[in-house]
Amino acid sequence: MAERRMKPVKLEKALTFLEPGPLLLVTTFDGKKNNVMTISWSMPLDFDGRFALCTGPWNYSFAALRKRKECVLCVPGANLAKTAVQIGMVSGADTDKLARFGLKTRPAACVQAPLLEDCVACVECRAERFLPAYGLFILQAVKVWENPSCPDPRLVHAVGDGTFYADGEKFNFRRLMRAKLPPGL
Amino acid sequence: MAERRMKPVKLEKALTFLEPGPLLLVTTFDGKKNNVMTISWSMPLDFDGRFALCTGPWNYSFAALRKRKECVLCVPGANLAKTAVQIGMVSGADTDKLARFGLKTRPAACVQAPLLEDCVACVECRAERFLPAYGLFILQAVKVWENPSCPDPRLVHAVGDGTFYADGEKFNFRRLMRAKLPPGL
Repeated sequence: MAERRMKPVKLEKALTFLEPGPLLLVTTFDGKKNNVMTISWSMPLDFDGRFALCTGPWNYSFAALRKRKECVLCVPGANLAKTAVQIGMVSGADTDKLARFGLKTRPAACVQAPLLEDCVACVECRAERFLPAYGLFILQAVKVWENPSCPDPRLVHAVGDGTFYADGEKFNFRRLMRAKLPPGL
Repeated sequence: MAERRMKPVKLEKALTFLEPGPLLLVTTFDGKKNNVMTISWSMPLDFDGRFALCTGPWNYSFAALRKRKECVLCVPGANLAKTAVQIGMVSGADTDKLARFGLKTRPAACVQAPLLEDCVACVECRAERFLPAYGLFILQAVKVWENPSCPDPRLVHAVGDGTFYADGEKFNFRRLMRAKLPPGL
């Protein structure tokens, strides 16, 4: 069943899941156990799967990310919005969040942190560098998964004040932008 | 009239306009003229108005930002989505984009680049640092403006493939998140 849900897609497609600025569920593995944290501070740095992620020692997962230099950026759809917020309110220090929130996982292909099956997409990343002055991880995507059967694939955007918006009306400016679109997107 | 539209708000509120990951119109002043570029790669770095913005020499405005170390992050609502895309398709090298697209400007308070009056919000920023390896500007907000009379305040999110989503359904998890909300938001 798991194999039928998440399907691998090309690396360049990672951009289309992360550029919109969605709330993320970031999984890590610290050498002993998996964990997940909720983060909304990320952005692309190029068209080839390089991303920035901002976090700090207040997140229990931070130590695992620094140590193992791997994570999976999982993009929840609107069906997981409330769960993502709940995940952000407890700590992996004393809670097995994956079990507590009933998140279905499956092994990733290139990193040891897990994929979250019910997300819209999962981007396996290696951390190339950490800039402590800004809590900034420079990540390189190494494998990208898409879930074509996600029950509600609307991305969720954190406002920062406890409210969130799901994607609404879609605008298609592909024709207008044709000259500048990255190849293959 | 202009004074009635954009009103100053506290610095911490910048986060609520930028954390959702919206498409941005970034204004600059190169010492001679104003310019504007469309960028969707940005994110918060803290709760006190520090942000990261990713761009490069392919944007004509890049030189002005490096030289003057100032810009305004203007957040267009859905009414400006198509205009923002059009702005991204021409260059300030040979086009006065503010005039061509009929963008109403007004002077900023702390920087020389202009505010765009028809946006949802404008965040005046100073560039603290540039990290050439990643085309990354570290920006510090110095003044924030909100436009309560924006005709369509839905933020716009670039997918990266020529399509865009406006903010749709709103979720309010303020009660659930109360213990973690930054003061005053």
